[in-house]
Amino acid sequence: MTTNCQVISGGVTAPRGFSASGVSAGLKKNNKLDLALLFSETPAAAAGVYTTNLVQAAPLVLTRQRISAGGLARAVIINAGNANACTGARGLPDAQASTQAVATALGIPEEQVLVASTGVIGVPLPVKKIIGAVPQAVASLSKENHAAASQAIMTTDLVPKEYAVQLEIGEKLVTIGGMAKGSGMIHPNMATMLAFVTTDAVISHGVLQQALKQVVDSSFNMITVDGDTSTNDMLIALANGQAGNQEILPATAEYQLFYQGLLEVCTALAKMIARDGEGATRLIEVTVKGAPSRQDAQRAARSVAGSNLFKAAVFGKDANWGRILCALGYSGASFDPTKVDIFIGEVQVAKDGGALEFDEDKAQVMLSQDPVHVFVNLKSGDGSATAWGCDLTYDYVRINGSYRT
Amino acid sequence: MTTNCQVISGGVTAPRGFSASGVSAGLKKNNKLDLALLFSETPAAAAGVYTTNLVQAAPLVLTRQRISAGGLARAVIINAGNANACTGARGLPDAQASTQAVATALGIPEEQVLVASTGVIGVPLPVKKIIGAVPQAVASLSKENHAAASQAIMTTDLVPKEYAVQLEIGEKLVTIGGMAKGSGMIHPNMATMLAFVTTDAVISHGVLQQALKQVVDSSFNMITVDGDTSTNDMLIALANGQAGNQEILPATAEYQLFYQGLLEVCTALAKMIARDGEGATRLIEVTVKGAPSRQDAQRAARSVAGSNLFKAAVFGKDANWGRILCALGYSGASFDPTKVDIFIGEVQVAKDGGALEFDEDKAQVMLSQDPVHVFVNLKSGDGSATAWGCDLTYDYVRINGSYRT
Repeated sequence: MTTNCQVISGGVTAPRGFSASGVSAGLKKNNKLDLALLFSETPAAAAGVYTTNLVQAAPLVLTRQRISAGGLARAVIINAGNANACTGARGLPDAQASTQAVATALGIPEEQVLVASTGVIGVPLPVKKIIGAVPQAVASLSKENHAAASQAIMTTDLVPKEYAVQLEIGEKLVTIGGMAKGSGMIHPNMATMLAFVTTDAVISHGVLQQALKQVVDSSFNMITVDGDTSTNDMLIALANGQAGNQEILPATAEYQLFYQGLLEVCTALAKMIARDGEGATRLIEVTVKGAPSRQDAQRAARSVAGSNLFKAAVFGKDANWGRILCALGYSGASFDPTKVDIFIGEVQVAKDGGALEFDEDKAQVMLSQDPVHVFVNLKSGDGSATAWGCDLTYDYVRINGSYRT
Repeated sequence: MTTNCQVISGGVTAPRGFSASGVSAGLKKNNKLDLALLFSETPAAAAGVYTTNLVQAAPLVLTRQRISAGGLARAVIINAGNANACTGARGLPDAQASTQAVATALGIPEEQVLVASTGVIGVPLPVKKIIGAVPQAVASLSKENHAAASQAIMTTDLVPKEYAVQLEIGEKLVTIGGMAKGSGMIHPNMATMLAFVTTDAVISHGVLQQALKQVVDSSFNMITVDGDTSTNDMLIALANGQAGNQEILPATAEYQLFYQGLLEVCTALAKMIARDGEGATRLIEVTVKGAPSRQDAQRAARSVAGSNLFKAAVFGKDANWGRILCALGYSGASFDPTKVDIFIGEVQVAKDGGALEFDEDKAQVMLSQDPVHVFVNLKSGDGSATAWGCDLTYDYVRINGSYRT
């Protein structure tokens, strides 16, 4: 994305002044890690992007309220195993009680503690278990425990998702790190997962919020697993300023650098989420160019990446390009169907909206790779976009046929 | 729906003056039936509703053109095994050639022959095979062969889909019959399947078109299998007037009777399509009431019926009502989440948007029935609607992982 960024290890604790932990509060079975705590030594500017679902979980409501009221945060408490969504009147007090426990244990203002939950919907949050585990979560805070934190936020995820980069902004070394969870219920317009990004950059709440919104449009909002948009999902960014750079202001070269770094972290995490879609065996990357506008390209790319029929065809390694053209056709994007060229990997499978003789064996090889690349040229303008999805497999059905049981 | 309608056998040939046939043209493997012909002894008023996909197959383009130009038809030729979609410049002449063969063999004007195709996209139509089989299709036309016709239009359908009703309109016995195919790629806004409805009612092209559009809104546009909207699908209605009733005019009691009969046929066929969704084991019927408007109710009902997560939960008999509330939340319908009541069959599983103690065993029994009934009361108005879908199973993935091969 940008050549200035260097990928480093360390996830959310890679930036200066952040520590994290992951402990077991007994919300998941078999004493699995299920409670993560993220902490900044000094107050951090906070920004958030939230689900578009009309039904919004209590922790999301509380976190959004606190970020928009103060714009500052010191800690985020995250539990897996229970979403605290659709839990009626007790949802909000329960969410608040868990932040209060963190505030007390850390000696920080309760309004600077954010909260996120993921897991089953409609079951009251076992908040006493969380409160009981908070002292241990605080005691375990360290630079090293970013990995434990990224494990604690997993639900049906198979792998933890972390990423971090370093880049120079105004001769200061700035670090941006992140972790994410989410494999089902992944679809555009947020509401798609939990993701937490940390940075030591000096940047205000407002500018961070602007950058985050811009980045989401090309990263988390361009992945799709099953079209379901959840009640809980959010992306939170914290910037504690410990890099000591000059404050990043909009429309500057420094902003652009920071934006690129943030985009790289968010895109990497988004692709990890799509790759780890429930039951998925392969990441699908769909790039559309030649659209009348960027919006058309985004719609077109997401529609292909999200088509159940095409996703099943990828699983079966079937070069059924008609399903790609079909998904383009119902995407809402504007284009001329008789101009469309389609490639699966290096193999062109359609030209000018029509069939083409192609090497089926080679196409099958392309469909066996991970990621599977689809290139579409609409030849109707300059707009381009990339979306990510995953194949639809037997295991998606197995996982979602018995999630609660 | 209406107590005046009597269900009868006979499908598309139940109304007076219609005959049909189903033969093998060699488009499907193993000499399966793949070419259906529908014929009216006398010119019939014709009406159609078509896919909303931007990519539209050649047969659809030709049929729409002919219905809008003349409003009359004598015959419909339908092939399965090849969609004649995305076949470039030769698509339209190929579609036309098959109608020409029918016109010649039957001695009727070519403009009064309609055409529909279903099957693989992007492969040129083997039109010579179709032309070669037309004489046999004409020779086989009979009252009895409605069943063969309904089999010939099947693709991945497991069962043929036919329905017919009789009702009195102005002291004349009017018959309405129909057949349909389609099990994947079923989603609202047409573009969802092939369906053919015949009637001996006296009704003009324009009034028939009006009734058909109205009926589709509550029947075919309320089913969903996988969210994919195809390039080929259409609903065609033919009315040959042989019942001898007084012409049905809009805003009359007779129109209302006819509308009810047409609605019953189309709803029955639509439900058969949803029930036979690829890999489905059970029909899901979602009724939403208490919405601010009918449109809100429709959005809400379709969103639940179409949620991959809920569909997989039905397959697994998991009373995961949070997924229902979640799908309501992202449907675009307007409502107050804290007022929502949800029932699975007779078991109330959520009240006022929150959890409720319920009998899990009884809920599992309700989820084992076919159809599975979901009732939602949004308690926010008077709008209501019903949508149909099916569970998401391993077999959906198997079928669509290797459709072409």
